[in-house]
Amino acid sequence: MNHIGDAQHLRKPLPEALLNALRALFGERFSTSQAMRAHHGRDESSYEPMLPDAVVFAHSTEEVAAFIKLCSQYVVPVIPYGCGTSLEGHVLALHGGITIDLSQMNRMLAVNPEDLTATVQAGVTRKQLNQEIKDSGLFFPIDPGADASIGGMASTRASGTNAVRYGTMRDNTLALTVVTADGNIIKTGTRAKKSSAGYDLTRVYVGSEGTLGVITEITVRLYPQPEAVSAAICSFPTVADAVNTVIQAIQVGVPLARVELLDENGVKAINAHDKMTLPVNPLLLFEFHGSENGVKEQAEVVQEIANDNHARGFEWATRPEERSRLWAARHNAYFAILQLRPGCRAISTDCCVPISRLAECVLETKADCEANGLIHAIIGHVGDGNFHVQMMVDPNDAADVARAEGVNARMVARAIAMDGTCTGEHGIGLHKMDFLVQEHGDGAIAVMRAIKHALDPHNIMNPGKIIRWQ
Amino acid sequence: MNHIGDAQHLRKPLPEALLNALRALFGERFSTSQAMRAHHGRDESSYEPMLPDAVVFAHSTEEVAAFIKLCSQYVVPVIPYGCGTSLEGHVLALHGGITIDLSQMNRMLAVNPEDLTATVQAGVTRKQLNQEIKDSGLFFPIDPGADASIGGMASTRASGTNAVRYGTMRDNTLALTVVTADGNIIKTGTRAKKSSAGYDLTRVYVGSEGTLGVITEITVRLYPQPEAVSAAICSFPTVADAVNTVIQAIQVGVPLARVELLDENGVKAINAHDKMTLPVNPLLLFEFHGSENGVKEQAEVVQEIANDNHARGFEWATRPEERSRLWAARHNAYFAILQLRPGCRAISTDCCVPISRLAECVLETKADCEANGLIHAIIGHVGDGNFHVQMMVDPNDAADVARAEGVNARMVARAIAMDGTCTGEHGIGLHKMDFLVQEHGDGAIAVMRAIKHALDPHNIMNPGKIIRWQ
Repeated sequence: MNHIGDAQHLRKPLPEALLNALRALFGERFSTSQAMRAHHGRDESSYEPMLPDAVVFAHSTEEVAAFIKLCSQYVVPVIPYGCGTSLEGHVLALHGGITIDLSQMNRMLAVNPEDLTATVQAGVTRKQLNQEIKDSGLFFPIDPGADASIGGMASTRASGTNAVRYGTMRDNTLALTVVTADGNIIKTGTRAKKSSAGYDLTRVYVGSEGTLGVITEITVRLYPQPEAVSAAICSFPTVADAVNTVIQAIQVGVPLARVELLDENGVKAINAHDKMTLPVNPLLLFEFHGSENGVKEQAEVVQEIANDNHARGFEWATRPEERSRLWAARHNAYFAILQLRPGCRAISTDCCVPISRLAECVLETKADCEANGLIHAIIGHVGDGNFHVQMMVDPNDAADVARAEGVNARMVARAIAMDGTCTGEHGIGLHKMDFLVQEHGDGAIAVMRAIKHALDPHNIMNPGKIIRWQ
Repeated sequence: MNHIGDAQHLRKPLPEALLNALRALFGERFSTSQAMRAHHGRDESSYEPMLPDAVVFAHSTEEVAAFIKLCSQYVVPVIPYGCGTSLEGHVLALHGGITIDLSQMNRMLAVNPEDLTATVQAGVTRKQLNQEIKDSGLFFPIDPGADASIGGMASTRASGTNAVRYGTMRDNTLALTVVTADGNIIKTGTRAKKSSAGYDLTRVYVGSEGTLGVITEITVRLYPQPEAVSAAICSFPTVADAVNTVIQAIQVGVPLARVELLDENGVKAINAHDKMTLPVNPLLLFEFHGSENGVKEQAEVVQEIANDNHARGFEWATRPEERSRLWAARHNAYFAILQLRPGCRAISTDCCVPISRLAECVLETKADCEANGLIHAIIGHVGDGNFHVQMMVDPNDAADVARAEGVNARMVARAIAMDGTCTGEHGIGLHKMDFLVQEHGDGAIAVMRAIKHALDPHNIMNPGKIIRWQ
């Protein structure tokens, strides 16, 4: 993979006039310190850091616009940065340039409870948002795990455990304020719940990973806090039995709020980490939202289906502390799995296939991990056909890393062959650019490239991510 | 409005070589007959017809690609046509050119019940789709009224009465096969339920009204047929009471499948047309989907909320024939309203606002209709904040038409001022191009235009619709 070759013209020392202009505009919020650059030159992927030449902290859309006008004038790369929790190298400064950190743009701009909408600055995190609206009786459901910024979540089209019921950032973003590559401020939509008014600019920018403009404000959909929540957990002899349970529950219309799969390695890790005694088998964790009667009914229907699919030890609970106990396994999974091979780093993969192919895709991928001697565990947002293999590798052992990358490449190829996608929720970043081509084909990539060229004609917006310039 | 001025170069006799090539490719499925051209030169809007120079009927994506390659070579406009049920002049041949009729591309390509997906050719209609899958226990919920083609529905980002629960074509289109303006065939997505793989080309083409390419195949989401369905109907002293009932029901989390508002004029029309005796007041019609207990519970919660908002005569029913009786008012509304002024034509408007502003927007618009002496009725997809005013005008009376257009323009301005949109589901077509600019502003329109220029560099794809070339 040659990420650098196509944009060498971007790689140059920052012009003195630009530095002066930025110092004048941002004062102490502009920095070229090594520490600040280092902090912004990495995300949570296993990639080596790539440092920007400078960092600015914006406080308003207007500041972002002024900044981008300058970067456009001097043809300097712009890398938008929220919380740095991305997983595919999205914020790495491949061609140098300036990182614009939006984390201080963390004001709530509006909450409209009657309309079930909120408008926030891009740096508001999902936990902050939920904290701010908790007295309204509403909540924002999208939970990618990390306490990411809403701007970052929009940029990667994030989702997570609740997506099976509530959708992804694609579905839950009503409108954006975006600063374009020439420094114009646009609004991509309104607070109307639906619209047929022209090209869907909101969806053009959601998932564009900062390569077409900078998202500075987001209007999202909110949902009523469910009257009742219940949780359930049960084990299955095989992954296929677990997946079939989910398929059948969805087919009879059970509105699952969450359904997560842990493979036996994940269960083993949790037993060790949390001193639990779960059967070492594939495990499903459910959450149901609805009325008191509704969640009871949902759990009963699912229990019956699970039993038909050889489930063992179906337990369900409605009280918060009991629900927490059941879901503890899932919440601690990431750290528990890290302990499977202390001192190593997790490489996390991310595929999504039609659910009818999920068991097959998971099992073939597990077999590949085993054939390559990789310590691993699988976590799946199984209602969406989305799963992650967490492989524990020694980052200093090139052969180990290569084995994991090989498993990932074959997993992606498998998912694409099953009419699935190379990434369900993590995005493309640096890491999956070749996989994107493999998935979409040259024709569709040409259309994406035409959009990139049209909206960012000088290739200054997060250059070298998603698609190559040529 | 000057629709013609910017693309005069397109208006020319079809070159003989192109005619010969199309005759060779399509045989009797290519026609220049007056009758065929006239049939394709109009939709269901009140616009005067504008005839294409020729019509072809395609049977496959490959034929569409061959056709577009020829039109691209000769720089001839291409107008995609499904069932001709659009309402804003989408299929009118403003600059001449050739209409490509996709109605014979009506094959089901795949049904995947376990994944809740179906893939269809663009000419399959929504009723045909539901007929073909009815034994699978699944259904396709989107119902814009007309038995439109799925391709046409994707092109206008259609929705309808079920959208409050199931979303619009934006949400329910998983992937498209598209022929681009240079005749390439691309796939915009996969059957995976979610994806973060690059720019969201599916959403770029959904709602693009044939101006960026021709949608030839669509993969849509299906849903389990609900175990139980119930319906309810009740009257309110004011539109505000009706809207507040819906707001409160949504806020407590009732998953309304449908909720439709008819104003007192609509009710009057139905009483006359169907010999009914409904109270002449704003009316809400509900449909609930769920388990037997669930729909009962939903209706009870809604009844309580409705009573708090001064509802009168709340009736609910679960048996199909009773449900049909309750909903007859809605099903017959369009024709009943036409009878309010026999011999006249209906001009249908389409705005969508945040639901908290809906009552205000409806009432101000009604007052405007009354001040202008227009016979009218209002139908609202009230859960989405979307409503239509049907105004009965004499198409031969220019002053009458102008009054209706004035009401429409002010209604749009009102919706935009309320942070709403100029079209909830009908699209822009010819009719709303100025409103689109008003809604989005020059900056966002420039981005849309950049996309249009990038993906259709010779302006051959349904030219003169959505946005002006310059």
